Amino acid sequence: MGDPRSPAAPDPGTLMGQFAATRAMTMEMVDGLEGDDFVVQTAPYTSPPKWHVGHVSWIYEVVMGRIDPGYRSQREDLSGYLNSYYQRFGEPGEKGRRGTFSRPTTDEVLSYFRATSGRVAEFVASRSLDEAQARLLEIGIHHECQHQELLAYDLQHMLGGRYEPAGGKAAPPPPADPGAAGEARVGGGLYRLGHPGGGFAYDIEMPEHAVYTEDYAIDRLPVTNGQYARFVEDGGYSDYRHWLADGWESVKENGWDAPMYWERDGEGWQVDDFAGKHAVDPSEPVRHVSFYEADAYCRWAGKRLPTEAEWEKAALWDEGNGRKRRFPWGDGGPTPERANLLESRLWGCAPAGSYPAGASPSGCLQMIGDVWEWTSSEFAGYPGFRTGFEEYNDKWFTGQKVLRGGSFGTPSASIRGTCRNFFRLGERWMFCGFRCARDA
Amino acid sequence: MGDPRSPAAPDPGTLMGQFAATRAMTMEMVDGLEGDDFVVQTAPYTSPPKWHVGHVSWIYEVVMGRIDPGYRSQREDLSGYLNSYYQRFGEPGEKGRRGTFSRPTTDEVLSYFRATSGRVAEFVASRSLDEAQARLLEIGIHHECQHQELLAYDLQHMLGGRYEPAGGKAAPPPPADPGAAGEARVGGGLYRLGHPGGGFAYDIEMPEHAVYTEDYAIDRLPVTNGQYARFVEDGGYSDYRHWLADGWESVKENGWDAPMYWERDGEGWQVDDFAGKHAVDPSEPVRHVSFYEADAYCRWAGKRLPTEAEWEKAALWDEGNGRKRRFPWGDGGPTPERANLLESRLWGCAPAGSYPAGASPSGCLQMIGDVWEWTSSEFAGYPGFRTGFEEYNDKWFTGQKVLRGGSFGTPSASIRGTCRNFFRLGERWMFCGFRCARDA
Amino acid sequence: MGDPRSPAAPDPGTLMGQFAATRAMTMEMVDGLEGDDFVVQTAPYTSPPKWHVGHVSWIYEVVMGRIDPGYRSQREDLSGYLNSYYQRFGEPGEKGRRGTFSRPTTDEVLSYFRATSGRVAEFVASRSLDEAQARLLEIGIHHECQHQELLAYDLQHMLGGRYEPAGGKAAPPPPADPGAAGEARVGGGLYRLGHPGGGFAYDIEMPEHAVYTEDYAIDRLPVTNGQYARFVEDGGYSDYRHWLADGWESVKENGWDAPMYWERDGEGWQVDDFAGKHAVDPSEPVRHVSFYEADAYCRWAGKRLPTEAEWEKAALWDEGNGRKRRFPWGDGGPTPERANLLESRLWGCAPAGSYPAGASPSGCLQMIGDVWEWTSSEFAGYPGFRTGFEEYNDKWFTGQKVLRGGSFGTPSASIRGTCRNFFRLGERWMFCGFRCARDA
Amino acid sequence: MGDPRSPAAPDPGTLMGQFAATRAMTMEMVDGLEGDDFVVQTAPYTSPPKWHVGHVSWIYEVVMGRIDPGYRSQREDLSGYLNSYYQRFGEPGEKGRRGTFSRPTTDEVLSYFRATSGRVAEFVASRSLDEAQARLLEIGIHHECQHQELLAYDLQHMLGGRYEPAGGKAAPPPPADPGAAGEARVGGGLYRLGHPGGGFAYDIEMPEHAVYTEDYAIDRLPVTNGQYARFVEDGGYSDYRHWLADGWESVKENGWDAPMYWERDGEGWQVDDFAGKHAVDPSEPVRHVSFYEADAYCRWAGKRLPTEAEWEKAALWDEGNGRKRRFPWGDGGPTPERANLLESRLWGCAPAGSYPAGASPSGCLQMIGDVWEWTSSEFAGYPGFRTGFEEYNDKWFTGQKVLRGGSFGTPSASIRGTCRNFFRLGERWMFCGFRCARDA
Repeated sequence: MGDPRSPAAPDPGTLMGQFAATRAMTMEMVDGLEGDDFVVQTAPYTSPPKWHVGHVSWIYEVVMGRIDPGYRSQREDLSGYLNSYYQRFGEPGEKGRRGTFSRPTTDEVLSYFRATSGRVAEFVASRSLDEAQARLLEIGIHHECQHQELLAYDLQHMLGGRYEPAGGKAAPPPPADPGAAGEARVGGGLYRLGHPGGGFAYDIEMPEHAVYTEDYAIDRLPVTNGQYARFVEDGGYSDYRHWLADGWESVKENGWDAPMYWERDGEGWQVDDFAGKHAVDPSEPVRHVSFYEADAYCRWAGKRLPTEAEWEKAALWDEGNGRKRRFPWGDGGPTPERANLLESRLWGCAPAGSYPAGASPSGCLQMIGDVWEWTSSEFAGYPGFRTGFEEYNDKWFTGQKVLRGGSFGTPSASIRGTCRNFFRLGERWMFCGFRCARDA
Repeated sequence: MGDPRSPAAPDPGTLMGQFAATRAMTMEMVDGLEGDDFVVQTAPYTSPPKWHVGHVSWIYEVVMGRIDPGYRSQREDLSGYLNSYYQRFGEPGEKGRRGTFSRPTTDEVLSYFRATSGRVAEFVASRSLDEAQARLLEIGIHHECQHQELLAYDLQHMLGGRYEPAGGKAAPPPPADPGAAGEARVGGGLYRLGHPGGGFAYDIEMPEHAVYTEDYAIDRLPVTNGQYARFVEDGGYSDYRHWLADGWESVKENGWDAPMYWERDGEGWQVDDFAGKHAVDPSEPVRHVSFYEADAYCRWAGKRLPTEAEWEKAALWDEGNGRKRRFPWGDGGPTPERANLLESRLWGCAPAGSYPAGASPSGCLQMIGDVWEWTSSEFAGYPGFRTGFEEYNDKWFTGQKVLRGGSFGTPSASIRGTCRNFFRLGERWMFCGFRCARDA
Repeated sequence: MGDPRSPAAPDPGTLMGQFAATRAMTMEMVDGLEGDDFVVQTAPYTSPPKWHVGHVSWIYEVVMGRIDPGYRSQREDLSGYLNSYYQRFGEPGEKGRRGTFSRPTTDEVLSYFRATSGRVAEFVASRSLDEAQARLLEIGIHHECQHQELLAYDLQHMLGGRYEPAGGKAAPPPPADPGAAGEARVGGGLYRLGHPGGGFAYDIEMPEHAVYTEDYAIDRLPVTNGQYARFVEDGGYSDYRHWLADGWESVKENGWDAPMYWERDGEGWQVDDFAGKHAVDPSEPVRHVSFYEADAYCRWAGKRLPTEAEWEKAALWDEGNGRKRRFPWGDGGPTPERANLLESRLWGCAPAGSYPAGASPSGCLQMIGDVWEWTSSEFAGYPGFRTGFEEYNDKWFTGQKVLRGGSFGTPSASIRGTCRNFFRLGERWMFCGFRCARDA
Repeated sequence: MGDPRSPAAPDPGTLMGQFAATRAMTMEMVDGLEGDDFVVQTAPYTSPPKWHVGHVSWIYEVVMGRIDPGYRSQREDLSGYLNSYYQRFGEPGEKGRRGTFSRPTTDEVLSYFRATSGRVAEFVASRSLDEAQARLLEIGIHHECQHQELLAYDLQHMLGGRYEPAGGKAAPPPPADPGAAGEARVGGGLYRLGHPGGGFAYDIEMPEHAVYTEDYAIDRLPVTNGQYARFVEDGGYSDYRHWLADGWESVKENGWDAPMYWERDGEGWQVDDFAGKHAVDPSEPVRHVSFYEADAYCRWAGKRLPTEAEWEKAALWDEGNGRKRRFPWGDGGPTPERANLLESRLWGCAPAGSYPAGASPSGCLQMIGDVWEWTSSEFAGYPGFRTGFEEYNDKWFTGQKVLRGGSFGTPSASIRGTCRNFFRLGERWMFCGFRCARDA
């Protein structure tokens, strides 16, 4: 990474410092790509890298237009291509056809990316933003972080082992600690779910509100490849009894017989990921499973998925001190070392139980920074929800499940213990896994 | 209706009395059909009447096989055709192809229906059932009630105004009471949601469990045709801002511009239902709208759908006496008069506010017996859910929303205040409507 | 069959005699059906029997309206349902949805059938038809014959061995004559293809016109089940080299591995047809193969399909006498005995080589009355083609291949040596087979 | 164009000279493209330019492998991507997914292109090819020419007016000669259709064989935009009577209301082509119409399409001298001036009647070098057809119509009067038009 903290760079603690660091990271992610890689879309649910690069820039222009109705884009002609799904800027292009555009070219989009960085800097320098306005800009920055993670998903889909993210080789992951296995038991009662305010959070994480849960037990660790492989070997994909009806349909329609990217290799399994093609590591958290597969595994194992309230309480609630942490390991965000650790793991998940950042108060490990974890909760607004950005998150309040945690591909600057991610139940190209729970 | 309470008939208060009455009602419902009507399937989500007739009978055989593994059907050859979705009896036929079978013929199916009634009677007479066994039989009876209502949906879809359900003409519905409009305000806190035990309930209504709600307001009456028509006239179907993303997709894909069965007629609207083609009555509850339409209306009106906990608490919770009623109007089920009222209403919903059975403690009206009401809650198991009948309700725990209440087409014997119905978000051939709520 | 030649019946040699006999045959064909059988459509390419019954009647009304613009149908309300594909009577219903109509009922359609017979008789009795007008009526009669054959296809598809056509059991077919195998050699040069006039023929059989062919050889007999089975056993369906690109696509898309209705039975094959489920008879002509399969077999066998000119010349041209026969066996149409023979064969094809009606001048056998035979010719108008009935045959002049001959299901009254049938290249529920040819 | 006739270049009259010129032209065609343009596929029927570049090279390797079984590709890894439809090299990739490959990169493919040119040169230099072997290589060259034309179609589809083919601006086309309109009358009888031998021709152009035609008239000029626009204005696309059934289906399914690339502009029409967006020129031949549209126009105009025999006889048969020409204007192929003329016309068709190269003996103009012309003939092998290259042209012998002539995009080196092109009946992104004929 070019150091965003060089003399010319703004203070990383400021909004503009965050902005600069985020822009730099996006460029770093596409740094090693071939020209062709920018252009191609390998599935209807992925996007070409050049589209991500342009779209995250375009959103800043939307934000500036919200702050100052007099703001005019210099590339309004790109709006048709770069609009993802905002009806208010005209009928958006069909998502599955983003790979059919050779124009704007990658060069044009990269120019637009740079020009937009400059225009945002000028815009901010030329006025003083009130709190709501600053918040809109902050949403733009976090939106770019989200797309960095999506870009990682899409690059893995496109290139498999042929792509090496920026940052050099990861340090060898620390050894697994088998002693970390087992369940945490969490007492029931009212819990205040969601973001308590203070610092950035999306509208969908708020308001904090009371939820009642019964007593429950939750696994200290996510389900590993080794555990999941036993489900597969036990005929899990061919026994309807483990599956919800919609899941069973998906299995048959898609011919699923293992997680995405797994290939049978004699008795074992190979996987194709950022580390190239290699044997599946039994101690790493399983990833690239759909909600249906996670749910079926749980049923096979005599357990169930946690609700998102159960997940969050196990991750953040400090019963001893009667308060909620901001992160499982405490209130402090990822330190530079932590951040580095998290991001370096783009080269492969660390083995189960190895995460050094410390357990949650309930004793759970690897809740942030390994894989997004499916919960049983439908993605919907919390009681009292108020939209924070038009047509952004809340128009997707049906047909999706909440995932909690944050993966090794989630930029450290946009991780929080209250983050809610959401995907369709059959999607599995994300860095997603799960942990089990049960009634206690 | 042939009187199921004739001397020869079993006591209606007993299980076998209930059984006999249910069987008689099914026959009554198909009494006026032409031969061709039994055979045809008009949409992938409907079924031919002869299939319903056979399937409800077949389920009793499944039940008897569960009670006595030695039980053998005399028509095992029909199982392939009559199995709805039970994988354990072999790969079920494709639902959308039920209308391609000319064999078994309607005559065969009707014979099978009668023979099964006899075999159940013999079976029960020849042994003494323990409680769990009796409960299985009871599920069979309620299952038949469910299919009676589905049959009513399907007959309306097939025949529109050409079908007259058994029972004679309805009395003219009582006049609407405009004073009944407005909202009920319900205080928040913990509420125990679900069936408290005592009497029949499905597994999915249990266990009763604590749910926390904030204070809320809920409309005393369901949204009427007149109110909904204002949404339509206001361009509701062409303004994306009212719609969830999935809903907007549905509008465009299906070309929706009004509730199902509505046709523009000059300035007004006509509807094609059991009363033939006639003007839409503005004072009746709107029906045949999807979840997406209900949600969009609420957004347009500045409100939202209630959760199922909010709906049930408004319907059943008697704050003054600190207890839950079994029905909105009290603990007593529909009396014969009430039942008659409910069922007679197959000839058309009564106008809004007219329901004489009395308000719920919170002051809400028409909560049972008019239309199933969409809630915002995803259909899933309650905490601590335990399956009561394999592969029945719980394999559908994704992709559906809960509807509460019970419609004019719901047999009075299978109505309870805790009933949960569930359908896909885009379905609308059911007798379904909604009422609005909001944060208070 | 009620004898259409009874005293009250019109002279069978007249147009009205033909009409009466045709109507009687249609009724006879549906005589043994159950009520449900009339209603059901088992594939998008079949139609419910009640639709056939109504449609053939409706066409007579179209004809009467053409003859006398003042003619009015008494059931104009049925036109929407009974119109097959005539745009001029309004947008026709979707073919694949004919099985979704319970109304008009079978009873209504049968009444309509009878009433139409009466109205045609009155219509004809009340005026004198000129030649062109009589010809229109004749087209109506032959149209009904066509639908009789389609009805036989559709009943086999619906009922397989459960349906027995009217007419009693067939006499056992005469023994096969192995000496009949081998090729006929036909000399090239100009041949006048098509119907020479005199007697009824469709517009698409005319005008007779010169076509040049090279010398060729053509098999004396159609390809038999036994021969075709060798192609199957030789891996014919899994070797792309035998197949046209479109054919290979069809094989993979549809999972074809044998003719329609064949099922593997140990080492051999079973077939499900009007004779019930039974072993495939190796000496019968193969049937229920698509154009692609016929073509692939020929390529495997080192041969090719004949053009329709080659087929007709081999069937009808009498080189010795320098003239064209009307039938392969001579000028006389099927005698009552012959007709009986042909129609009785609805219970199964006779073995190869057994047809007693005599060889064509070139020495070919079984050219009419066994199976329609695929040719390599695209269905199109002959040079100088002039339409004889609007929107009837000629709007289908693309995407279909010509079949020649006439099957055991073709009514004897509508057989001629010059008949052209036509189907899409992938269809195979017809009584269709083929014979091979090659350059000589 | 880099001059392929430079000192270092092989003699253009030799096979290797032809090869070098063809390779040079391919590179010239992609010379002005942006990197992104090489990668994108804009419709399932187009291919990315880098695929064309690679595929034409790969075919030479196939050819060398046929000539010398010991030949080994240095990039066998590319075969999966570059195989179009040859089953014998493994299951080919799905055509519609060619735009989802970012690897091999454009740079790799261009290297492969250059390396292959070198390997072919070495291969040829290292041995002496017999006639059959030389012919295989020649097929490779003509195959590359075919793809040059396809590339032109695909570039127009991708870029519309944004792409300028190499070669500089075209000279203004000569003025139209209205005197050229009208019909040529051609006498019937036997005509020997196809390539008589001598010089290169594809297997599908042979053998020359006798075909009988009646007398006919054929338009001297192709139908112009102005004529076609009258059909459109007359409601041609909304009157089913002009259309074959399959064509009418296509109109409705695709929403066709004018040729591809036309857009309504007030009273007139605009077109988007290599000359950018501009008014449709009424005097140019209409292009980008499907077979169905061509057929419908003819029916509207009271005419019909010619058969391919009629087209060829009108183009090549010199009745006065009793012989067939090689080109409509004589036996000499396009001279450099002519070639230049033809190729320069990539910037737009010349107006109707302007073609200076001379009329055919029958008096027809613009038969080669303007647009491929739809005929009514199904694409199939001529009588006596013998395949010249496995799995190449003859596996497409169903579902396509023959087009004759050659368009302004056809490389002059691969034009002949006997050329047969073929496309599906609904395709229209080619440079295709038609002329009318009628019975005389």
